[in-house]
Amino acid sequence: MNDRNQVIRYILESWASEENPWNTTDELLQWIERTRQETTVSIRKIPYAYDGYWHYDKNELGIVNDQRSYFSVKGIRQKDDTGVKEQPIIVQDGIGYLGILAKIIDGRMYFLMQAKIEPGNINHCQLSPTIQATRSNFTRKHGGKEPAFYQYFVKRQNCITIADQIQSEQSSRFLGKRNRNMILLAHDDVEVPSTHRWMTLGQIKKLMQYDNIVNMDTRTVISCIPFVFSELDEETLSAVRKLFHEEAFFRSFLEHSSGDAIRKIYGKMNDIKMTGNFERELIDLHALKDWSYDGSAYASEQGNFRIVFCDIEIEGREVRCWSQPLLETVGKSEFGLPYQIGKDGIMRFLVQTKCEIGCFDRVEIAPGIQKEPLDERITDPVDKLFFEKLERKEDIRFRGLFSEEGGRFYHEENWNTIMEFKEGELEELPDGYFWADFRTLNTLIQFNNCLNIQLRNLISLLNI
Amino acid sequence: MNDRNQVIRYILESWASEENPWNTTDELLQWIERTRQETTVSIRKIPYAYDGYWHYDKNELGIVNDQRSYFSVKGIRQKDDTGVKEQPIIVQDGIGYLGILAKIIDGRMYFLMQAKIEPGNINHCQLSPTIQATRSNFTRKHGGKEPAFYQYFVKRQNCITIADQIQSEQSSRFLGKRNRNMILLAHDDVEVPSTHRWMTLGQIKKLMQYDNIVNMDTRTVISCIPFVFSELDEETLSAVRKLFHEEAFFRSFLEHSSGDAIRKIYGKMNDIKMTGNFERELIDLHALKDWSYDGSAYASEQGNFRIVFCDIEIEGREVRCWSQPLLETVGKSEFGLPYQIGKDGIMRFLVQTKCEIGCFDRVEIAPGIQKEPLDERITDPVDKLFFEKLERKEDIRFRGLFSEEGGRFYHEENWNTIMEFKEGELEELPDGYFWADFRTLNTLIQFNNCLNIQLRNLISLLNI
Repeated sequence: MNDRNQVIRYILESWASEENPWNTTDELLQWIERTRQETTVSIRKIPYAYDGYWHYDKNELGIVNDQRSYFSVKGIRQKDDTGVKEQPIIVQDGIGYLGILAKIIDGRMYFLMQAKIEPGNINHCQLSPTIQATRSNFTRKHGGKEPAFYQYFVKRQNCITIADQIQSEQSSRFLGKRNRNMILLAHDDVEVPSTHRWMTLGQIKKLMQYDNIVNMDTRTVISCIPFVFSELDEETLSAVRKLFHEEAFFRSFLEHSSGDAIRKIYGKMNDIKMTGNFERELIDLHALKDWSYDGSAYASEQGNFRIVFCDIEIEGREVRCWSQPLLETVGKSEFGLPYQIGKDGIMRFLVQTKCEIGCFDRVEIAPGIQKEPLDERITDPVDKLFFEKLERKEDIRFRGLFSEEGGRFYHEENWNTIMEFKEGELEELPDGYFWADFRTLNTLIQFNNCLNIQLRNLISLLNI
Repeated sequence: MNDRNQVIRYILESWASEENPWNTTDELLQWIERTRQETTVSIRKIPYAYDGYWHYDKNELGIVNDQRSYFSVKGIRQKDDTGVKEQPIIVQDGIGYLGILAKIIDGRMYFLMQAKIEPGNINHCQLSPTIQATRSNFTRKHGGKEPAFYQYFVKRQNCITIADQIQSEQSSRFLGKRNRNMILLAHDDVEVPSTHRWMTLGQIKKLMQYDNIVNMDTRTVISCIPFVFSELDEETLSAVRKLFHEEAFFRSFLEHSSGDAIRKIYGKMNDIKMTGNFERELIDLHALKDWSYDGSAYASEQGNFRIVFCDIEIEGREVRCWSQPLLETVGKSEFGLPYQIGKDGIMRFLVQTKCEIGCFDRVEIAPGIQKEPLDERITDPVDKLFFEKLERKEDIRFRGLFSEEGGRFYHEENWNTIMEFKEGELEELPDGYFWADFRTLNTLIQFNNCLNIQLRNLISLLNI
């Protein structure tokens, strides 16, 4: 099992399968639902003036807690040639673990997933990676137990590393926040607690058909599976060929002309990184232009989110209650990944370079459509085509609602859409957009901080 | 000429050739020497107390100029689990261009290189890229002409982009300084000024045999040539096969198991990025612990360099004189790239992860040997083997002196060595070291900020 060809074959076979001797996909859904029912989560907004363990501290430029742990919410100001932008931003420096343990059992690869309560999420309980631990969690800054499975990801003993990349999160909400996305293939037996279950990749993908079931962290980790480094041998190729339902997608995996797309995308990103007079600084949260608090929230008419404080109570096997700040969105975002099947029979996806205020290095690659609630919907021919086709319900291959970070965001759910653009529908590609085959995107995912989380999450929805 | 196979073949053929209808390699050497002789460069250290256009400003935390342009020298303090480190550092935020224009003339690829005066360099005139322009240069903050060939690299019209990566410079001297390394293949005729000449890649490599002739910027750009993205077709493969003198190096180009080495290296780098309590801040240059000025320089007994001020006068076609701060090294560094030919007949190079105070993202990949003047020479079995073999002059495939940045450093030259480690000589690989084939290193170079400049420069010395 040290052969990468074999590993990729197992992953693809797991992707193509929902067969599972322990749990059908329906049973997994019921298990998540049952976990949800067994736990009472009460989340209640309280006045923004709240001043307890979490509180505003002018010297710290924003909202912190007594221990200066977890995260803080500060103000940020960015100046560049296009003007000055100000908004609140979450600062969370430590890199956390998002890790999935995989194992081959009776010739099939399964992934160990967790039914995890996250109070901010719309339905409280979602499918999460094997481990999902912030730096404050695993350094046990607040006491408590070591997160389950932590030692696997730190020591990686008797494991094959399938994926290991430090990836960004929402750069419109976080300042350079990154998590380590890992998938490990364990050789030894794994003891499975009642919070976790084995499932195939196909089952995880099937659960993505349901709104707000597969959490953001699962989706980003799944998107990191590397398919590109190993050249598949003939035997593997012919074996995996029949797993694919769509020839154009299979060819998008294999296509070898990635170099050109990568060079074009890098050319544009490098142009952006060189554009001048870029300055970014943290400023006092309560001195932000156009932002103010109205009793219930710290908000702005132009803001895609507001800052609220919540009392949270979780009652399950144990009772925990606390108060904390959360970001509450003012509506639903639209994230869309258009694709097109070229005359050469290869499926290519539409992506764009995107600068967001919290980007680790100014710019990342985003899906063709990325619109926050208050963003103008139609600004160029790509938007126009997408929203017109959406209106007509035309060529929509997938559309579903997914939650973002349930530990930082309040009841946020956004539309994720995969849509086919027919050859010729989009006459000209506006500046900053690129067509990229799956191989190109999968290559770029192997290098920290190229694709943003919205794009990675959309990629995770693709089906074999 | 849009076929990547063809481009790579032209590059490899140019690498294997010194044939040049306009200039033999000797004539190029004479041209550089003549340019040097035609220009009088006088560089004279003046007291550190100098207070003119460049001067110490406490509010700016260090040495700046009146226009706050070019660069500044500040203090930096880093705290992590290993303790506190302080030193001066050059802050230079804008990304500059290091670009080489290539062209195919009568079936052979030539690179347009410049004989460029850099006052800090030991022999003043060295072979430089077509364009070498800081942000202050090309934004013409100080008036002056637009740098020659600037429009080629901004517009890239009628050019194929061969390489385009933003790469770091010495992270022990610069805080996150990066330059855009580019190679463009021009389709149109190029007007060549007397400062520039066409040469094959083989000629550039030959000139590297001479001490302090090929400058740092040329070496880093050359190292970025991508060989890995395109799968070479059979015809190209058999054509280029005979260009290689060493089978083990050819196989190191082609080897397809890069994924494993890349995953191991990323695993280690990600571990380092996650290690805790890392803080870095700019502090007052003149408040650095153990640093003080003695009239002639700002220095420390533990410092690998001192800060000096120099009066510089360049007298050639025009006369220019100015004063500026420079970093003066206290000795020669040893940069070494050991390689080994495995039982499988593949050449692999020894690299290590290295944290330096100015790293853009905490850690980069360095050559197996990277010792600044005051660094302890032997700290592990790799050092021991390298320096023992060096002492015995054993298996040294290349050893030469090269200058670093002549615009920031004063008379700095460092040893660059490529050495073979025989199978079995290095019993165990210490933690943090990795064997990587050429394909792995070349893949990692395609992604900004993986390999540090010392490693990239050593890679540029390799011969086909």
